Amino acid sequence: MKRNIYISNMDDSKAMQIYMEKLIPNVKASMQEISTYDALGMITWEPVYANESSPCYNASAMDGIAVVSKNTKGATDTSPKVLEEGEDFEYVNTGNSIKEPYDSVIMIEDVVNESKGSVTIIAPSHPWQHVRPIGEDIVKGEMIVPSRHKIRPVDIGAMLSGAVGTVKSYKRPSIGIIPTGSELIEDFSKLEEGKIIESNSSIFKGRAEELGAAARRYPPCSDEYEALRHKIEQGVRENDMLIINAGSSAGTKDYTAAIIDELGEVVVHGVALKPGKPTILGIIGGKPVIGLPGYPVSAFIAFERFVSPIIHWMTGSNETEYEFIDANVSKRIPSSLKHKEIVRVNLGYVGERFIATPLTRGAGVTMSLVKADGMLEIPRNSEGVEAGEKVSIRLLKPICEIKNTLVSIGSHDVIMDEISDIMSMSSGHVGSMGGIMAMKRGECHIAPIHLLDEESGEYNVSYVKRFFPDGGKVLIRGVKRLQGFMVKKGNPKGVKSFKDLSRDDIVFVNRQRGAGTRVLLDYNLNKEGISAEDISGYTREMTTHMAVAIAVKSGSADAGIGICSAAHALGLEFIPIGYEHYDFLAEQEAVNDSRVREFIRILKSQEFEDRLQSLGGYKIEDSGSIIRVGEQIGE
Amino acid sequence: MKRNIYISNMDDSKAMQIYMEKLIPNVKASMQEISTYDALGMITWEPVYANESSPCYNASAMDGIAVVSKNTKGATDTSPKVLEEGEDFEYVNTGNSIKEPYDSVIMIEDVVNESKGSVTIIAPSHPWQHVRPIGEDIVKGEMIVPSRHKIRPVDIGAMLSGAVGTVKSYKRPSIGIIPTGSELIEDFSKLEEGKIIESNSSIFKGRAEELGAAARRYPPCSDEYEALRHKIEQGVRENDMLIINAGSSAGTKDYTAAIIDELGEVVVHGVALKPGKPTILGIIGGKPVIGLPGYPVSAFIAFERFVSPIIHWMTGSNETEYEFIDANVSKRIPSSLKHKEIVRVNLGYVGERFIATPLTRGAGVTMSLVKADGMLEIPRNSEGVEAGEKVSIRLLKPICEIKNTLVSIGSHDVIMDEISDIMSMSSGHVGSMGGIMAMKRGECHIAPIHLLDEESGEYNVSYVKRFFPDGGKVLIRGVKRLQGFMVKKGNPKGVKSFKDLSRDDIVFVNRQRGAGTRVLLDYNLNKEGISAEDISGYTREMTTHMAVAIAVKSGSADAGIGICSAAHALGLEFIPIGYEHYDFLAEQEAVNDSRVREFIRILKSQEFEDRLQSLGGYKIEDSGSIIRVGEQIGE
Repeated sequence: MKRNIYISNMDDSKAMQIYMEKLIPNVKASMQEISTYDALGMITWEPVYANESSPCYNASAMDGIAVVSKNTKGATDTSPKVLEEGEDFEYVNTGNSIKEPYDSVIMIEDVVNESKGSVTIIAPSHPWQHVRPIGEDIVKGEMIVPSRHKIRPVDIGAMLSGAVGTVKSYKRPSIGIIPTGSELIEDFSKLEEGKIIESNSSIFKGRAEELGAAARRYPPCSDEYEALRHKIEQGVRENDMLIINAGSSAGTKDYTAAIIDELGEVVVHGVALKPGKPTILGIIGGKPVIGLPGYPVSAFIAFERFVSPIIHWMTGSNETEYEFIDANVSKRIPSSLKHKEIVRVNLGYVGERFIATPLTRGAGVTMSLVKADGMLEIPRNSEGVEAGEKVSIRLLKPICEIKNTLVSIGSHDVIMDEISDIMSMSSGHVGSMGGIMAMKRGECHIAPIHLLDEESGEYNVSYVKRFFPDGGKVLIRGVKRLQGFMVKKGNPKGVKSFKDLSRDDIVFVNRQRGAGTRVLLDYNLNKEGISAEDISGYTREMTTHMAVAIAVKSGSADAGIGICSAAHALGLEFIPIGYEHYDFLAEQEAVNDSRVREFIRILKSQEFEDRLQSLGGYKIEDSGSIIRVGEQIGE
Repeated sequence: MKRNIYISNMDDSKAMQIYMEKLIPNVKASMQEISTYDALGMITWEPVYANESSPCYNASAMDGIAVVSKNTKGATDTSPKVLEEGEDFEYVNTGNSIKEPYDSVIMIEDVVNESKGSVTIIAPSHPWQHVRPIGEDIVKGEMIVPSRHKIRPVDIGAMLSGAVGTVKSYKRPSIGIIPTGSELIEDFSKLEEGKIIESNSSIFKGRAEELGAAARRYPPCSDEYEALRHKIEQGVRENDMLIINAGSSAGTKDYTAAIIDELGEVVVHGVALKPGKPTILGIIGGKPVIGLPGYPVSAFIAFERFVSPIIHWMTGSNETEYEFIDANVSKRIPSSLKHKEIVRVNLGYVGERFIATPLTRGAGVTMSLVKADGMLEIPRNSEGVEAGEKVSIRLLKPICEIKNTLVSIGSHDVIMDEISDIMSMSSGHVGSMGGIMAMKRGECHIAPIHLLDEESGEYNVSYVKRFFPDGGKVLIRGVKRLQGFMVKKGNPKGVKSFKDLSRDDIVFVNRQRGAGTRVLLDYNLNKEGISAEDISGYTREMTTHMAVAIAVKSGSADAGIGICSAAHALGLEFIPIGYEHYDFLAEQEAVNDSRVREFIRILKSQEFEDRLQSLGGYKIEDSGSIIRVGEQIGE
């Protein structure tokens, strides 16, 4: 079987340049003439000029009376003038035509002594007072909007006012999307081992529509040469551009490049972009045909890099500029010299500066796109970015939204998700010790921690004292939460104690170093004199409660330690160990920050208590109260 | 006839507060359950949790071979291992399930010596290498997006991956819009004196749709009590919210408030907001019914202030924050103590600061909305803003777009519109002298001028020398343009010379002081010994060529002076006076600015020459060449 393992590693900019040079002579944008009423969001093909002036006559600008200005001369408080209707004046409403001999309007509010057929005025009216002259708004022949302009509601208003009934606009290009892969399903009820719900095509469709294209998703095509070839021919025939998703790599069933080569031309196969390397830029019958990688993040990044600019060009859009901000990265981001890398980041606004924290770099993690506030580009031939370095981040959200967001870095708990449903909060999960370090570096507003002092058996306070000997910090009392052993439903292996973890027939799954739950385990192992080496799986580390729960659920481990709510969420059996304090470390001044105040308000709210109730395994005790560290708890 | 002249002047924030307090108990947002595939742009009603993990099995992360890791131990370059298909390994593509006994994947690129049924490996494989564990992307029960979240393409992707097939979202509220006024028409062919093309309802509809509502425009309703009452009843019945446009003021036929009062309650009538004062905030049958003023700008501002927040609330949107920037205002903006005023501004980025220049404040000028880059709010009880003062401007365009825009302030010419169709340029029209002053204050990148030295008969250079004695400026050669007398088709009054302007039967229309065309007139009057006082209409000042042309066209003047292209645009007769230099003043360093360089490139381009040709009345001579002032022209 032929295998396409020889793909190039071309610079992404060079790839795009070569591709566009081949496309431009072939691909034409197309024009349509549409009703102005339907033009919202369309992009003008040519400048739009007014067909008529607006107003197209001299119009009263007020409700009042039309008068002949020279006849009003001399009217004052003390020598008012009486005007006769039909002779000296006529009633006019705003917008009425001012016809000869009238040349001026007096506001109704300035008219006194109205009686049938006559009025009294106490001030003269200047020529053209309160009259909108012809063309005041728009002059016939004036350019209302230029070409390549995205039509907004006010533009439609102005065009209608200028008697422009139809607009020439770029026609929405039609983008066909063919998902490929025999493992892809669309019917959720068929989800089983080896099957994946097809989702990339919906991301592409949504993006294409946001960019002003019309998108058409085809059903997933199986990995069969003839079927795919047939589908690609159809897709090219029916659309202005075709995207084939996956099949662009070097697997045994990756036919895309071969078929494009057969039907047209593969211009580029493989770019020095991570994620996004196995992209194919092809042309069939003069139309762009692009093979995108299968992993959702790779697919998205390659779409943005190669497909978006072509859609922009086909739609006539000018909006190819992105907003950038400067931010300091919170940790080192190594990168390979071999490719340009696009890193998804969370952005936080802490202490008057933006902090960029890289999200997981796995190409399969769609959630890193969902959670990203920005994108960092690390150029080829760079070894990466050092912690603290200032970098330029492409924004994915408005700055004001980022500024309003409370930044939490530290231990993970399901309640953080619930709070982020009530207020704007971003939540990084690096364990309790990671949270303390982030607070030390000024990268977060709050750090959730649950750290058991192995000597005193007390939670959190001693750690804060130790790591912040100069004070200035407070603990915001969070919740008491139940930790315990998570095991399969029915507890088939009868796990009841820490001792059981060292049994030969038990495979354990652990949390990472620095996690409060790991500290809890080590404290208890130490207390009971159990050696870590006796526990099978002690070295297998997960970074969240849910990840531990899923390892147990899927059978790759028999037991793990975690919180009750995580066990509940996955329907696991839960054997309680005990309650612990899950609190929030913060700067003393931060309690005056509006975001932190809102957070405290929520901790104290009934809504929060209700949510805890339904999660299970939590206790509320003085939640939201401030503990000044160095003094008595509860003071 | 009853007249609603007694309307209040309530603070806009207080009005909104009182109104919302009455609305909230009555108005409910509604929920709908929709297919995830159709959810783009909808707003989540509740948090969305994953129904399944993704992947839902341990999946190969690479194309390659699945192996048992412990059986690969010890493989090296020098002691390779041969594996048998079906026994030691199986071929897998990305996404394939990794089943027992396999626990690891070797990339196909790392496999050597492939032959039928066996492969050779030269390195060991670690447990779970290149395997995506269950839930790597999304864990069952994980919150994918919170409530009140606007669904983006990546959210749809993540929801599908999490087997979420339907989403509970806010239902789009339906907004009815009734234009009122017997002067309104929708059929352009019926446009005549006293008639206005109805355009506000399309602006409202577009804005409502942008905000996520469904909008329904009703045909214009005449100013008849019963007809309007009937229409309002229908509108309330058929929609979640109703907007009635115009009829909210104090004219003889403004029934809106009376009808709302009859059918429900007028909560507020009249707010201290300019433009936007005669707004009516009413409730009928528990639904918001809002009367908006008739002038397009008033209508738009009142819509943004009162209607948008209610739509946001009904759609569940969180996006109520706007982006602001600090800018210096270029000229004094007086305002009344009586009301809050919203001023539309152009924004320019000149010399590392943002400059805000107020656009016309006329409530009838839709084009001021089309041209606005931002909005300045001048609070009640403020007398306005001084020139140079730093203010906060709400942005209507992305900052990067504003930063990329060339700012031109000075004399007006139709060619500026044409250039703004080729590049991003904002063009303020304040006459040549106004341009020189703007350049002195550092408010523009270029200043178009055409100033005739009355002594030397030479254009522009002597003015630049006089106003910038320290140098540092250049002139970018623009075009030679034909100035002349504009008269009605057929020149019925036989205007041929400056002398004719002083004839008794000729009414003239002039340009404003500081306009180059005014200088040209005065130079010639002086040369020919004609007194300004002898010219009827000498004191009537227009600020653009088009405004002069329209005055002649509409018959309010017999003659004016202006450029050939303006006369052509309106089909006027044009009697040439002569060519003048229309050049662009700029800072010497500015010629290295990318925006100015692009401008110069255009002046020299064939495209520009072609456009001049079709406008008529221009000559190209060294266009785009740089004249260093103080040295010989053309050097």
